[in-house]
Amino acid sequence: MHNPPIRHCTACGAAVTYRVPEGDSRPRAVCPACGHIQYENPRNIVGTIPAWEQQVLLCRRAIEPRYGLWTLPAGFMELGESTESGALRETREEAGAEVTLGGLYAVINVLPANQVYFFYRGQLAQPQWLAGEESLEVKLFREADIPWEQIAFRSVAQTLKRYFADQRAGRFQIHTFDIT
Amino acid sequence: MHNPPIRHCTACGAAVTYRVPEGDSRPRAVCPACGHIQYENPRNIVGTIPAWEQQVLLCRRAIEPRYGLWTLPAGFMELGESTESGALRETREEAGAEVTLGGLYAVINVLPANQVYFFYRGQLAQPQWLAGEESLEVKLFREADIPWEQIAFRSVAQTLKRYFADQRAGRFQIHTFDIT
Repeated sequence: MHNPPIRHCTACGAAVTYRVPEGDSRPRAVCPACGHIQYENPRNIVGTIPAWEQQVLLCRRAIEPRYGLWTLPAGFMELGESTESGALRETREEAGAEVTLGGLYAVINVLPANQVYFFYRGQLAQPQWLAGEESLEVKLFREADIPWEQIAFRSVAQTLKRYFADQRAGRFQIHTFDIT
Repeated sequence: MHNPPIRHCTACGAAVTYRVPEGDSRPRAVCPACGHIQYENPRNIVGTIPAWEQQVLLCRRAIEPRYGLWTLPAGFMELGESTESGALRETREEAGAEVTLGGLYAVINVLPANQVYFFYRGQLAQPQWLAGEESLEVKLFREADIPWEQIAFRSVAQTLKRYFADQRAGRFQIHTFDIT
């Protein structure tokens, strides 16, 4: 779910050129035939940290990239949804779990991927889940059992480290950070 | 800076059809010729609340939509930047002002526009600014002088209301809310 550079105009199909339009300061995909400018912007990844007692629910990825590694349930935010509703949807799709949202926990700029991550705290209604199509396995982990060497993404590992530190401190606060 | 529905494939230029790809649950712009799927996702708007003493710097829009109305400096997040660096860039471009960021203040889902707003608190280094090309005028306002009937966007009005309430309370906290 990554868009490669634009080669053709989405409005008329002609081959585009990348140039700086008048009044702009960045190269854009501009159509020499119809004048349409196709903008490209960072995308949002929305997910949750599903909790049950002192444990967190992780999913083992059944898809590339990072097949077989562990992650929090999260995915691309879709048109027509909010960051919260997207996070709930991803938790259902990937972990087959229903959570009650407990507030925004982390906002992470992942600069190499042009992505912004949103993780919400989530309280599992019951210790119940079901690996979705994109997960090989879904499992609760205590802090001591987290497979740190097999976490799929730095954004997820750094979120989990902050989460367990806050849990130990007995106080959850919002975290904003960049991955460069 | 809004992308209309996709009519042609960005990879090969053929006419696309909207259909649900296998293994997906939503209609996407799929190319019948080359198979490329062009995803569309919400976009981020990044900006600041530039403060000087008890006042906030607003810009009067020199562009559509909402020409002539007042807003906070903000605009589309670009590829290659973080939400913070984008917010600083927009503050420079629209208000000609340099601010020191004071943390994330508001995250707003604007559902009808498929946008997520990020507003950061900003401390003006000096009471100095310059209307950019997209602004007719840039001016500091005390709470009592805010032209509430002439604020360009609900997201901005609601952010300013929360900001001044927090300022009165002497404690700024992060706000997350939806505009539907």
